[in-house]
Amino acid sequence: MKKVAIIMGSDSDMPVVKGAAEKLSALGIPYEMRVMSAHRTPDMVSEFARTAHENGTGVIIAAAGKAAHLAGVIAAHTVLPVIGIPIKSSTLDGLDALLSTVQMPSGIPVATVAIDGAANAAILAAQMLAMSDGALREKLFKMRVEMQQAVIKKDEGVRTLQF
Amino acid sequence: MKKVAIIMGSDSDMPVVKGAAEKLSALGIPYEMRVMSAHRTPDMVSEFARTAHENGTGVIIAAAGKAAHLAGVIAAHTVLPVIGIPIKSSTLDGLDALLSTVQMPSGIPVATVAIDGAANAAILAAQMLAMSDGALREKLFKMRVEMQQAVIKKDEGVRTLQF
Amino acid sequence: MKKVAIIMGSDSDMPVVKGAAEKLSALGIPYEMRVMSAHRTPDMVSEFARTAHENGTGVIIAAAGKAAHLAGVIAAHTVLPVIGIPIKSSTLDGLDALLSTVQMPSGIPVATVAIDGAANAAILAAQMLAMSDGALREKLFKMRVEMQQAVIKKDEGVRTLQF
Amino acid sequence: MKKVAIIMGSDSDMPVVKGAAEKLSALGIPYEMRVMSAHRTPDMVSEFARTAHENGTGVIIAAAGKAAHLAGVIAAHTVLPVIGIPIKSSTLDGLDALLSTVQMPSGIPVATVAIDGAANAAILAAQMLAMSDGALREKLFKMRVEMQQAVIKKDEGVRTLQF
Amino acid sequence: MKKVAIIMGSDSDMPVVKGAAEKLSALGIPYEMRVMSAHRTPDMVSEFARTAHENGTGVIIAAAGKAAHLAGVIAAHTVLPVIGIPIKSSTLDGLDALLSTVQMPSGIPVATVAIDGAANAAILAAQMLAMSDGALREKLFKMRVEMQQAVIKKDEGVRTLQF
Amino acid sequence: MKKVAIIMGSDSDMPVVKGAAEKLSALGIPYEMRVMSAHRTPDMVSEFARTAHENGTGVIIAAAGKAAHLAGVIAAHTVLPVIGIPIKSSTLDGLDALLSTVQMPSGIPVATVAIDGAANAAILAAQMLAMSDGALREKLFKMRVEMQQAVIKKDEGVRTLQF
Amino acid sequence: MKKVAIIMGSDSDMPVVKGAAEKLSALGIPYEMRVMSAHRTPDMVSEFARTAHENGTGVIIAAAGKAAHLAGVIAAHTVLPVIGIPIKSSTLDGLDALLSTVQMPSGIPVATVAIDGAANAAILAAQMLAMSDGALREKLFKMRVEMQQAVIKKDEGVRTLQF
Amino acid sequence: MKKVAIIMGSDSDMPVVKGAAEKLSALGIPYEMRVMSAHRTPDMVSEFARTAHENGTGVIIAAAGKAAHLAGVIAAHTVLPVIGIPIKSSTLDGLDALLSTVQMPSGIPVATVAIDGAANAAILAAQMLAMSDGALREKLFKMRVEMQQAVIKKDEGVRTLQF
Repeated sequence: MKKVAIIMGSDSDMPVVKGAAEKLSALGIPYEMRVMSAHRTPDMVSEFARTAHENGTGVIIAAAGKAAHLAGVIAAHTVLPVIGIPIKSSTLDGLDALLSTVQMPSGIPVATVAIDGAANAAILAAQMLAMSDGALREKLFKMRVEMQQAVIKKDEGVRTLQF
Repeated sequence: MKKVAIIMGSDSDMPVVKGAAEKLSALGIPYEMRVMSAHRTPDMVSEFARTAHENGTGVIIAAAGKAAHLAGVIAAHTVLPVIGIPIKSSTLDGLDALLSTVQMPSGIPVATVAIDGAANAAILAAQMLAMSDGALREKLFKMRVEMQQAVIKKDEGVRTLQF
Repeated sequence: MKKVAIIMGSDSDMPVVKGAAEKLSALGIPYEMRVMSAHRTPDMVSEFARTAHENGTGVIIAAAGKAAHLAGVIAAHTVLPVIGIPIKSSTLDGLDALLSTVQMPSGIPVATVAIDGAANAAILAAQMLAMSDGALREKLFKMRVEMQQAVIKKDEGVRTLQF
Repeated sequence: MKKVAIIMGSDSDMPVVKGAAEKLSALGIPYEMRVMSAHRTPDMVSEFARTAHENGTGVIIAAAGKAAHLAGVIAAHTVLPVIGIPIKSSTLDGLDALLSTVQMPSGIPVATVAIDGAANAAILAAQMLAMSDGALREKLFKMRVEMQQAVIKKDEGVRTLQF
Repeated sequence: MKKVAIIMGSDSDMPVVKGAAEKLSALGIPYEMRVMSAHRTPDMVSEFARTAHENGTGVIIAAAGKAAHLAGVIAAHTVLPVIGIPIKSSTLDGLDALLSTVQMPSGIPVATVAIDGAANAAILAAQMLAMSDGALREKLFKMRVEMQQAVIKKDEGVRTLQF
Repeated sequence: MKKVAIIMGSDSDMPVVKGAAEKLSALGIPYEMRVMSAHRTPDMVSEFARTAHENGTGVIIAAAGKAAHLAGVIAAHTVLPVIGIPIKSSTLDGLDALLSTVQMPSGIPVATVAIDGAANAAILAAQMLAMSDGALREKLFKMRVEMQQAVIKKDEGVRTLQF
Repeated sequence: MKKVAIIMGSDSDMPVVKGAAEKLSALGIPYEMRVMSAHRTPDMVSEFARTAHENGTGVIIAAAGKAAHLAGVIAAHTVLPVIGIPIKSSTLDGLDALLSTVQMPSGIPVATVAIDGAANAAILAAQMLAMSDGALREKLFKMRVEMQQAVIKKDEGVRTLQF
Repeated sequence: MKKVAIIMGSDSDMPVVKGAAEKLSALGIPYEMRVMSAHRTPDMVSEFARTAHENGTGVIIAAAGKAAHLAGVIAAHTVLPVIGIPIKSSTLDGLDALLSTVQMPSGIPVATVAIDGAANAAILAAQMLAMSDGALREKLFKMRVEMQQAVIKKDEGVRTLQF
């Protein structure tokens, strides 16, 4: 199976971004994590993006905060699907990262998930890989069933509550 | 090749959404367009989403405005990747549709593109399909080269301008 | 008397949502609490909504955060009045949930209250039930008088303050 | 049947607000329209609200723009359900009216619909009245079916489109 | 000298609002503090506003959060100048209160100060009273000089700092 | 009677600002209009503000758009009350001017009215002058009565409307 | 004198961006205009930025809309000062471009001017060049004096106006 | 070498602003820190700005929160480049300071950096000084290389992580 690359703009994003790694692990999808900055190491980013396909990467997840250019810059150098996670930082509650990630100009899309939505980035990557992988597709269905059962269990826990 | 389903919440979204159809046509990707409302025809939406995979759909694009629930509701009924296009309507400049589409809870992602970003939704769908389709991958590269050349041509047009 | 159904998208919403239950208890209105997710358990939500009227429910309160689709999805499956409580989550201060709840398209309204406004959701439900229940109407008036008296008491407490 | 009162803060709101009247007419619900200002005619507003119940009003719809206090001020003087329509005016795209209407303090709810959402205000009022009126409930179901059929018809119109 | 009335919508606003009282005390301006709610005690508010002039009040300061109608409702019942302090509450960082206070419709102004800007509300009230009170005008000038001297002292404290 | 100074940051603001002049004329209050820029003619602004009191000015109205510093800069040079009108310009719908005008630091207040709220700026100035001018106070009451009568007339015009 | 490079992300930005060229012409500063896209021609952008200094460029102005990465990407490849002009596009009124341009992470600054603020970008570039060019400094002072005189002339035009 | 002046509107801004001083120290650039308020000490600000050039200042950094006029007011009195740091204060997450700083009217630019972006303000000042100082230019390159190496080191630290 192709691997998923998880790129973060700074290692301070790790507490959020590891949620993507954990979800990929749970689905048995190989991944590698990288720290690269669109602004501090631009050549490293473009080199990575240009060679990602030949290095066995199928999907790229990129997480960054503030003026979050990382996902867009990667997307400019590859035709692999790029998933962007806007990271909430100390001001503006993540709105800056969301708009910087999602409002891409025509021609170069970034598949954006919720602010700090690392788990969903991983699931979205899995859904893309599952387009040609029936076994992974089954795992995704099973994960859905488990989510449903967790909700049903919580539902049963509150149905008799009276305040 | 699997087809792309383009779902719009209202036929008033067509002027924007047809941009996705045009881009898919240019890439030779089969698609079907549908009008369905998460709120007015919820059963039609869930029935569609549940059967999309077996009906030969590979990726679903969903476009809606205001409290744009369409992409999220579709995503709740399928593990196919779902791409959301937030549509700008008469108030709030599309911010309502953007937040309603992108801020999905953990477990059910929507791959969100820019407000009114129909062409990018199509390209993103093509990138997903190209993960297992080398010929489509080549077409995407070619499209990139054409975009570059268009920019270069425009660049040449302005380099001698003096005001 | 018909009961009020209080639906929350996640049991993590309970600290806010129980404010609705407490207010309904104070007014002697029967209610049941449920955990259901528009995205994780969509069929459970539509089944609930479709049968709510015949199960003796008069008004539905739905609370959800982020891309809060819960109230809208319920409203799509019933003509009972649906009251939406936007829940503040970790980013954007509840603005995402507010817009996702209130900006419903024409045809399917959601009666939206303030972000985290659980007590008001309960009072609004009571006002709807009181339209055909004079005794409940009296209780609502009594609650108003008590609120007035609480304000008057606080007013007396500050009138002599000098800093 | 009790009537619905439709109050607007200024007659300049009529182009939006008449959408509520039209929908109530279509449902056979009696209504009266009024122009009253929370700021220019405050006593008229409080007098109206205090006597609305005894004058045969079941639900009050209030529409206002900018610092939209009208719905809240009416709600302060009655325990009838009050539905607020935030009106978009020349600046801020209706966000000011939305927040001024929906963010009511605990104790006095306003059932807020979308910015300029006059039709939904009428349908919500009808849903409240239908809680004790089976015939009206049937009309609301019929309206839903008509909406569904309109969507299905539009769906058929686009399914064969290829760009 | 006429007094300043300081009205707050809830006694929970006291930690902010007392900043206005302290500043008025420092300027030797008589004031009274009141707790009144535009929504819970509307008649108390209108009665207060209508009689404020004859009761020796020259300026009214009104502080409220969320859908902050208090200043506007008071202004509707008097031609005394009304100063509004938008109070930050648990969501939206005070933006709701700011817009609800400042965006008044034509005809009924509210002189709005910064979110939680209680000291400035008091100084603004003093500036209004000083229009016909030379001694107070002198005190305001003196307060300015003291502010200048405080800044100059702090400036001296940092000029030699090197990091 | 003291006069009101109406300062605008640019003569392009005149279409909005003249609304203040018209209202002052209607109330018989003398005024002068000026064009001055906090950024292009800062010395002119500070000179004006410092001498306004001795030149017979009682209240200053300042209107500016974008990073609207005009009202704040004037307020820094006088203890006369300064009323700020945030002007909507080509981007951000006036939000920039509103925040730049209203969010003044402690010590130097600006009495801010609604975006483009020129008429209210004039009425607020009149209310300040009326604190020591019974005849003007009567005119303000009369204006209120006329506003009420205008609303009542419009109310009569819509009460029989049925759509 | 070193030249100023004016880079725009798309030739559709020309109507705004030419304002920068006109102002540089008026100041006698050499410039070249270029169309380059951070996303469509990323290598062209990095090549340009890396060689700008040796090609005689002193300051770079970069204008882009939506998720405006252009200025930041250029800044990542040079230590020349980079000035960013956020361009307003069809949605969100330029807020997306503003935040994408200004909220740069620590280490790589972009000197951001107002949305569509092309003239100011040029003046800022001139101010930087004037740090070591006394003649240019004089021209900037002269431009200030002309601006002052223009304001004074407009001021004279309105001082006698009475409405 | 010319020095950089770092002006803050209040000494409470020091914890953020000292980040600029530290970065200038690291680059060997002389600086002085000052506390001055556009509103409390306006004459001190204009006097400082007018004489900054002749006092050996090459670039001015100005930091302020809320209605942050400081940078703009300084820019009005000098043709030196002025860099603005919007400071986040207790409400609105710095958006007020950002818009008040960046949205300058045509003619008087402020080079705005990110909210609380003190280090970038210093680097931007250094880039301006380096336009005519090759040694400083080398230091800036060296700082870039160190930043790259820090990222590379962090990258190596995460590449083997598996969750």
